[in-house]
Amino acid sequence: MSWLENSIMASRGVAKGQAGAHHRLTEERQGKYHYVYGAFAEPVLTIQPGDVVEVETHDAFEGKITSVDDKPSEKLNIPYLNPQNGPIFVDGAEKGDCLAVYIHSVKPRGPQPVGTTCLIKEFGGLVGTANTALLNEPLPEIVRKVHVDEETGVRWSDRVTLPYEPFIGTIGTAPEIEAITSLQPDYYGGNMDLPDVAPGAVIYLPVQHAGGYLHLGDCHAVQGDGELCGVAIEQPSTTTLQVDLIKGMTIAWPRLETESMLMTIGSARPLEDAARIAYRELVRWVAADYGFETLEAYMLLTQCGKVRLGNMVDPKYTIGASIQKTYLA
Amino acid sequence: MSWLENSIMASRGVAKGQAGAHHRLTEERQGKYHYVYGAFAEPVLTIQPGDVVEVETHDAFEGKITSVDDKPSEKLNIPYLNPQNGPIFVDGAEKGDCLAVYIHSVKPRGPQPVGTTCLIKEFGGLVGTANTALLNEPLPEIVRKVHVDEETGVRWSDRVTLPYEPFIGTIGTAPEIEAITSLQPDYYGGNMDLPDVAPGAVIYLPVQHAGGYLHLGDCHAVQGDGELCGVAIEQPSTTTLQVDLIKGMTIAWPRLETESMLMTIGSARPLEDAARIAYRELVRWVAADYGFETLEAYMLLTQCGKVRLGNMVDPKYTIGASIQKTYLA
Amino acid sequence: MSWLENSIMASRGVAKGQAGAHHRLTEERQGKYHYVYGAFAEPVLTIQPGDVVEVETHDAFEGKITSVDDKPSEKLNIPYLNPQNGPIFVDGAEKGDCLAVYIHSVKPRGPQPVGTTCLIKEFGGLVGTANTALLNEPLPEIVRKVHVDEETGVRWSDRVTLPYEPFIGTIGTAPEIEAITSLQPDYYGGNMDLPDVAPGAVIYLPVQHAGGYLHLGDCHAVQGDGELCGVAIEQPSTTTLQVDLIKGMTIAWPRLETESMLMTIGSARPLEDAARIAYRELVRWVAADYGFETLEAYMLLTQCGKVRLGNMVDPKYTIGASIQKTYLA
Amino acid sequence: MSWLENSIMASRGVAKGQAGAHHRLTEERQGKYHYVYGAFAEPVLTIQPGDVVEVETHDAFEGKITSVDDKPSEKLNIPYLNPQNGPIFVDGAEKGDCLAVYIHSVKPRGPQPVGTTCLIKEFGGLVGTANTALLNEPLPEIVRKVHVDEETGVRWSDRVTLPYEPFIGTIGTAPEIEAITSLQPDYYGGNMDLPDVAPGAVIYLPVQHAGGYLHLGDCHAVQGDGELCGVAIEQPSTTTLQVDLIKGMTIAWPRLETESMLMTIGSARPLEDAARIAYRELVRWVAADYGFETLEAYMLLTQCGKVRLGNMVDPKYTIGASIQKTYLA
Repeated sequence: MSWLENSIMASRGVAKGQAGAHHRLTEERQGKYHYVYGAFAEPVLTIQPGDVVEVETHDAFEGKITSVDDKPSEKLNIPYLNPQNGPIFVDGAEKGDCLAVYIHSVKPRGPQPVGTTCLIKEFGGLVGTANTALLNEPLPEIVRKVHVDEETGVRWSDRVTLPYEPFIGTIGTAPEIEAITSLQPDYYGGNMDLPDVAPGAVIYLPVQHAGGYLHLGDCHAVQGDGELCGVAIEQPSTTTLQVDLIKGMTIAWPRLETESMLMTIGSARPLEDAARIAYRELVRWVAADYGFETLEAYMLLTQCGKVRLGNMVDPKYTIGASIQKTYLA
Repeated sequence: MSWLENSIMASRGVAKGQAGAHHRLTEERQGKYHYVYGAFAEPVLTIQPGDVVEVETHDAFEGKITSVDDKPSEKLNIPYLNPQNGPIFVDGAEKGDCLAVYIHSVKPRGPQPVGTTCLIKEFGGLVGTANTALLNEPLPEIVRKVHVDEETGVRWSDRVTLPYEPFIGTIGTAPEIEAITSLQPDYYGGNMDLPDVAPGAVIYLPVQHAGGYLHLGDCHAVQGDGELCGVAIEQPSTTTLQVDLIKGMTIAWPRLETESMLMTIGSARPLEDAARIAYRELVRWVAADYGFETLEAYMLLTQCGKVRLGNMVDPKYTIGASIQKTYLA
Repeated sequence: MSWLENSIMASRGVAKGQAGAHHRLTEERQGKYHYVYGAFAEPVLTIQPGDVVEVETHDAFEGKITSVDDKPSEKLNIPYLNPQNGPIFVDGAEKGDCLAVYIHSVKPRGPQPVGTTCLIKEFGGLVGTANTALLNEPLPEIVRKVHVDEETGVRWSDRVTLPYEPFIGTIGTAPEIEAITSLQPDYYGGNMDLPDVAPGAVIYLPVQHAGGYLHLGDCHAVQGDGELCGVAIEQPSTTTLQVDLIKGMTIAWPRLETESMLMTIGSARPLEDAARIAYRELVRWVAADYGFETLEAYMLLTQCGKVRLGNMVDPKYTIGASIQKTYLA
Repeated sequence: MSWLENSIMASRGVAKGQAGAHHRLTEERQGKYHYVYGAFAEPVLTIQPGDVVEVETHDAFEGKITSVDDKPSEKLNIPYLNPQNGPIFVDGAEKGDCLAVYIHSVKPRGPQPVGTTCLIKEFGGLVGTANTALLNEPLPEIVRKVHVDEETGVRWSDRVTLPYEPFIGTIGTAPEIEAITSLQPDYYGGNMDLPDVAPGAVIYLPVQHAGGYLHLGDCHAVQGDGELCGVAIEQPSTTTLQVDLIKGMTIAWPRLETESMLMTIGSARPLEDAARIAYRELVRWVAADYGFETLEAYMLLTQCGKVRLGNMVDPKYTIGASIQKTYLA
């Protein structure tokens, strides 16, 4: 955890990146899960900056898809999808601040096969959808249950085993006045499906509403870039976060920090707009905090910026743009 | 009003298209205006199917831009934009029904010059925006106040007078569980900025939440296709609606009917997705209710469909696709 | 023809809009048709500004689809589609000039049923395509032959008769150094499928290569906005044009003039970029030639601009943006 | 070079991946460079499958930008940009085959500072452009000359040194009947600006025209994902290729192979269409050649596919989608 001591969280956070009290947000304590990002629901938990929260998340289907014989169209009830834990109220958070969320771990939770993926009608990156509205027949519904193990990986088939590379698919704060489906990623975070939101990273989330109203859910055991068919290896999880608060650090979109890089995250349609948002935020960040002129930062990122595709399937698509910290020394 | 007797509203509505009680939703009665489409606020009015409501709408700036010397960036307070009247609770409306809203009239309200348009930073069809995020400098802010008269038209300048062709920029029902900024158009209506939503037309809006929760606002004295700079001739108005309810008519997106045509309305990004939504809905409507095979309807609309661009500036863009009723006889 | 006397063609053309010699470009004289817009093929005809050319166009399938039992996938040979007449060399045309092409008439040519439409695999506005590359199964292939008559219209079915509203689907000049498939619309014209390119209109086309190298083909008996399934009522035609030359009128994209309006035409993906191009060209045109400041033109077009969707199916999509001449007086 | 012995090139190529005769395509031998991808120009070189070609490429500006005081708008002459070596005629190549091009090395060529980058008006990922046509003022023109060394790297500034990670920005075959600007990437390759097209990789390019007509140019010393401002570290180079021919391997889009992965490459607008093309090609490849069902491949790539953004600035955007070979064993 040594790099964390030099993280933005540690240098600017109210708790200086130090861990505080430990909370458990179990299924029982959570009670009702939520399907929107907003500040209309009562917080289930109030914490102090630095507190650690262990969260029992559901999978994106709230456990309703239990067998390869299930039909998602029969089991799922739109718009009650992608259940979220929270809201967590962070004491002292006000509009214009940001939360710094260090992701400690994401562990599979529940009986095997704990992982689920499937094809859902008119949903996914290579099919007609509700937005890309076409007359072609949808693909058949297929469900796959997958054994997930932190040590031995994700057993896709007799032939293929994938690594266990877990991350949080959906995490964010509440918009100021809106309540938006947890299926959507946006300026406050949400359903970004970005594999970098993983153990060992700190994600910075803008606060629009007093308390921040942190939500999370939708953890994935592993996922490729783009979450192509729209459904990763979805799993219920025990996810542990350390939540700090940075006063007066106003950010327009989520940011992410690891030991080696800084990333900005944009979500929009078409996909180039997501890339534009992410890269403009990165230009501005590098210019504001690291002593580069704006156009110098623009030209430098042309040579060394990296892009990660989150998902290309949700109501908005997500892209992360990053720069290695070594170039900012 | 004779064509109305043969409208879908008249033939399928609970009130058979007959006008009921008359209500006035004045500024005073409205009190607090709303900035989201949702079902979290208490209804200001409950009506029966067929009732007529006269609504005092604000302009999109809630009257805060009063002079050509105002700077929108100083007067406007994001996200408190595009104030909406409502919610109006329609008795008996349930998820799966639709509201039929006949637009009787839209009249300018208040002292001259009653119309306002302006350039807002990073907003509009020919500038970089929050989504199409660029490094170019924004255009200057410019405010224009315009005299609007139902008879003599919209006095743009000494040189140019535009016709008074008013319509409702923003109208819709509440999403089932969300509360979405009134700046956005979507499946429930919202900020479509479609000039066909005008006196003489019936707009059909899907009900997702019991009571429908009808909102409206943002009336325009006149507007071109696309609402190019993002701001039409905005005006406070007295707008009169007759609201009927059609039980069991489940529609996925707003529809519109006039004496001569049927229109479906889609909102999405990129713009081709808005067109796809609108046209797919029209194919399905023509196929379901007018005795054409689906692919026959697709091929026929290829030859006779008409497209109207609502706005190309909002969080989603809006397109209406239509067919003349004569082809459906 | 009186408005033509006041057209831009008449006031600025080398021939002052006066008709010159008459040429016939029959099938025989054309010989080999072309499938690209370029200056690599030898001109089939050299004309003087003002000359009138009567052109025998093929339909977009070069007549290969003759029966409702034909399968387009068996009859068509990619990329040999959308055959074009030309190139026509206009004497004196140089890079930086523009051609003014007055469309006199478009008449159906050949035995009935002279019109053809069809569904082509992975082509069209409401299906997955080569670009919007999906895994859904394609729609079935369907061919329809249609009787077309200038007087009685387009006999779609026993139930529906459509008006005869013919136009030129594909017309343009050669790019300077490229040769681009005639399926694509672009800055030089090409496959715009814009119903305004019709008898009675003048289209202005930029000259990039000496002689202009005018091509045309792909005439439609009638078409809806967007050419939804990708295939209008395609017909072989006898099309008569008067071609003038305007020296030193440099335009970036095609423009169009009718008795009542001025239009600019943009082609791009996504569709909003086509709209941006068209509207920016219109802003610039109104500002340059009609005494408006640029931002004044932008704000005025917000209130009175009109948009026409050409096609939403080709390698680029096409949009025309227009303003009524009355506002420019 | 051992992995190459097991490459697709080695197993299916006419030359079995064995190096043949060595050719030098110097500036002198090339003579006139080309600005389109097409088969209208005479081949400068004819080779046999397996032959090795050492090519002297120009930088994308043909060396015209020699000083930081140059203005690109004054030095560059549209459309004569991005000069290409070739065409190289590969004996025996016919439509339906593909070329396998092993990239041996890309070395800087010429006096220091050999690298150039710059800001060009209305070109780049974070500015209004000819397609995303806006009214904002363009950014200033800026030129930067950069010292490039294979050993010590790319000296961006006193503060930042970037690694030398060279690749070929533009490479491809001729379309069958078109000649398309070398600024554009497409199904035949072209200006993809994909950093994976680097020494050590084999790129597979579809043959549309007898002889293939291989072109290349536009080598980069280093570039970030997206080529954000539109101009990488451009350098003249000596690039060495081994060109094999695979008979009867028909591919719709370029493919790429390295020791560890297989990649497919798509180019389109909007950016999601580039991703769809790349991923659909990868699904089909994995299904056709590695014993997976199509929908199984789709679901597997959802979990393990990787995406690389080439450029987000050209007339089409480019994305590579890949899978690790270990999953295909």
